[in-house]
Amino acid sequence: MSEQEQPAIHKGLAGVVVDTTAISSVNPETNSLLYRGYPVQELAADCSFEEVAYLLWHGELPTDDALLVFEATERENRPLDPTVKRVIDDLPLTAHPMDVVRTAVSVIGADDPDAEVSTPESNLGKSVRLFAQLPSVVAYDQRRRQGLELVEPHEELDYAENFLYMTFGEVPDPVVVDAFRVSLILYAEHSFNASTFTARVIASTLSDLYSAVVGAVGALKGPLHGGANEAVMHVFDEIGTADRAEEWLDAALAEKRKIMGFGHRVYKNGDSRVPTMKAALDALVEHYDRADLLELYTTLENAMGERKNIKPNLDYPSGPAYSLMGFATETFTPLFAAARVTGWTAHVMEQLASNSLIRPLSLYDGPAERHL
Amino acid sequence: MSEQEQPAIHKGLAGVVVDTTAISSVNPETNSLLYRGYPVQELAADCSFEEVAYLLWHGELPTDDALLVFEATERENRPLDPTVKRVIDDLPLTAHPMDVVRTAVSVIGADDPDAEVSTPESNLGKSVRLFAQLPSVVAYDQRRRQGLELVEPHEELDYAENFLYMTFGEVPDPVVVDAFRVSLILYAEHSFNASTFTARVIASTLSDLYSAVVGAVGALKGPLHGGANEAVMHVFDEIGTADRAEEWLDAALAEKRKIMGFGHRVYKNGDSRVPTMKAALDALVEHYDRADLLELYTTLENAMGERKNIKPNLDYPSGPAYSLMGFATETFTPLFAAARVTGWTAHVMEQLASNSLIRPLSLYDGPAERHL
Ligand SMILES: CC(C)(COP(=O)(O)OP(=O)(O)OC[C@H]1O[C@@H](n2cnc3c(N)ncnc32)[C@H](O)[C@@H]1OP(=O)(O)O)[C@@H](O)C(=O)NCCC(=O)NCCS
Ligand SMILES: CC(C)(COP(=O)(O)OP(=O)(O)OC[C@H]1O[C@@H](n2cnc3c(N)ncnc32)[C@H](O)[C@@H]1OP(=O)(O)O)[C@@H](O)C(=O)NCCC(=O)NCCS
Repeated sequence: MSEQEQPAIHKGLAGVVVDTTAISSVNPETNSLLYRGYPVQELAADCSFEEVAYLLWHGELPTDDALLVFEATERENRPLDPTVKRVIDDLPLTAHPMDVVRTAVSVIGADDPDAEVSTPESNLGKSVRLFAQLPSVVAYDQRRRQGLELVEPHEELDYAENFLYMTFGEVPDPVVVDAFRVSLILYAEHSFNASTFTARVIASTLSDLYSAVVGAVGALKGPLHGGANEAVMHVFDEIGTADRAEEWLDAALAEKRKIMGFGHRVYKNGDSRVPTMKAALDALVEHYDRADLLELYTTLENAMGERKNIKPNLDYPSGPAYSLMGFATETFTPLFAAARVTGWTAHVMEQLASNSLIRPLSLYDGPAERHL
Repeated sequence: MSEQEQPAIHKGLAGVVVDTTAISSVNPETNSLLYRGYPVQELAADCSFEEVAYLLWHGELPTDDALLVFEATERENRPLDPTVKRVIDDLPLTAHPMDVVRTAVSVIGADDPDAEVSTPESNLGKSVRLFAQLPSVVAYDQRRRQGLELVEPHEELDYAENFLYMTFGEVPDPVVVDAFRVSLILYAEHSFNASTFTARVIASTLSDLYSAVVGAVGALKGPLHGGANEAVMHVFDEIGTADRAEEWLDAALAEKRKIMGFGHRVYKNGDSRVPTMKAALDALVEHYDRADLLELYTTLENAMGERKNIKPNLDYPSGPAYSLMGFATETFTPLFAAARVTGWTAHVMEQLASNSLIRPLSLYDGPAERHL
């Protein structure tokens, strides 16, 4: 098609189906989300994050033996390479933590002598490597910003426990570990969202898997996407207490501000992941005795429902949950990235298995032909 | 739309118009390419690369005064920041030079205390900064791979001269400078190609400009996109001499290999940029007295035309041109990135001026709902 005709413009690609996928299914009518056929709330109830990562990559849950092998590989791959640590140390504390993740993944890729090898086995190995390394990057970056030393990974802890251990220097109460594990599972995968789609576009040029993940990190950073979980916390801080929520909201809506943590391109009647994450948040609220936070949460949600009939998305409960766990607000989106790297890499491998260069068209509306 | 219905699948987004653009117009019927209305061959004939960059960003060519100011800003921004140099020095020589560019841009972004400021003025400043810095990154990386010292930028040289000077330690013959300048202008912009589209998807989440460019670098790297100019040179090396071209091509086509430097998603009757670049290549061939290379070029082009009726794209003449200039093959795609950063950043700014989150759908074809 010519770029000069007057074709339909699919701005934002809203409603445009780009490809098939067998990784997950987002069903707004039934408010459900399936990973490889399994409802995400069942996985969140019963599985470790390692099992879910394996499921996303392999299409099936691991056998007991396969899980043992996979867990061992993940644990071996945790320690940060000295180059990666040096580069992180060289970045200023003014840098957004997502810029640190983006740079670290780029360095991990540049450091891999097999970066250009693109067999399914090699790409799976890279995916496991990134999966194992991102917690080390994210935990260390939060610590260095607080003037603390790196905590080496702990071989006897599982993924979720070890992530918290490397961040805080100890494994918190099981209620906290569990809420964290649930958040990771819910964040792992969500079909053709903007960051996953970015990864697929990059992979479609037959570039390497690391390049695709670096691009995805950059896309996730945006406040209309993963950056929303941080933005929710800024909103909570701005409002302060529940009694000020309605007034704040009316003023924000009058200024035509988008309220972070609400709305979704695909879900229009609520986000399938919210009930599960809300239950985890409730448990944390009880554990930390923070009914005040829950009151603010509920008041703002209700007020937004009354005024705009727009429902919360996953970032709405996960932001306050991460805050209660003790994470710095600026670390929330990096946590999302560490979880979503499972989905990104599964999609890169799926794209490569049946590739077509992703290259759309545009309609020119600039000046007519002119000459120097 | 549900992801469960059976809608049309736009694999590769072939023929799908995502948005309007006033930056360039690609016209396969007339085999023409206009930047802001000006035919690219006229710009290549008469303009400096600085003028074209200014045109892409501002929509109009600079006045004499504006050009002086812009040139001064570009020259001031050339020197590499010590952090960026340190990180480059820390990356192994096994790393693909595009991984070095990707990492360097990520570090430049992380180092910018205003990375998160997204006003049009701030984003224009970042665009100029990246424009000025990429030659320093690319030239230094080629030199360090050859065991050579960094050459500091030269304030009295223009962009194209200085790029060559920083790479080779001297300004080559005007024929060479001119062919290089032409290649940069031709590579600068090409509407919604895969890397530019990547940049727009990332920007659409309201992430920062650097994140968008980092993702674009990763997409450009792929051999179906910018990586093709390197791949063309590997093909030439593999073939050796013109008399072996037909035999090589028949064998490659029999193995269903894609022939690098041929074909295009949008142009089906030849690439509008090829005649201009081919003329520059002809001048280089004469300058370096390399009729043998031209013979190989022509023989392969003709053979491909006869067998498949597929025409060369811009990477076909630019690969051998860069080789004649003395660039290492692995540096070709980084040269493309340095040129295209103008188009990428122009598109990021255009996307932000009228944004909608780019978030398509997928059609689920995995296992039916099942339970643990
Ligand atoms: C996610 C999001 C980008 C999806 O948006 P979209 O599909 O492009 O839909 P639009 O932004 O066009 O929104 C449609 C309408 O709902 C309104 N709307 C959507 N989300 C809103 C929000 N969070 N606050 C206020 N209004 C909102 C829009 O203003 C628009 O109203 P209009 O038709 O009167 O102009 C959008 O809901 C949003 O910006 N949410 C806040 C950021 C966020 O939480 N992101 C995380 C998503 S998981
Ligand atoms: C650029 C490119 C990806 C565009 O491809 P596309 O629009 O997705 O089209 P397809 O790859 O589906 O190609 C259509 C047909 O032409 C053939 N074809 C296209 N380019 C070809 C090439 N360079 N060599 C051999 N066959 C080619 C395909 O094999 C396909 O044939 P088929 O229908 O018999 O399967 C493709 O031409 C290509 O891979 N070229 C080589 C890489 C290159 O030079 N890239 C730089 C582009 S500026």
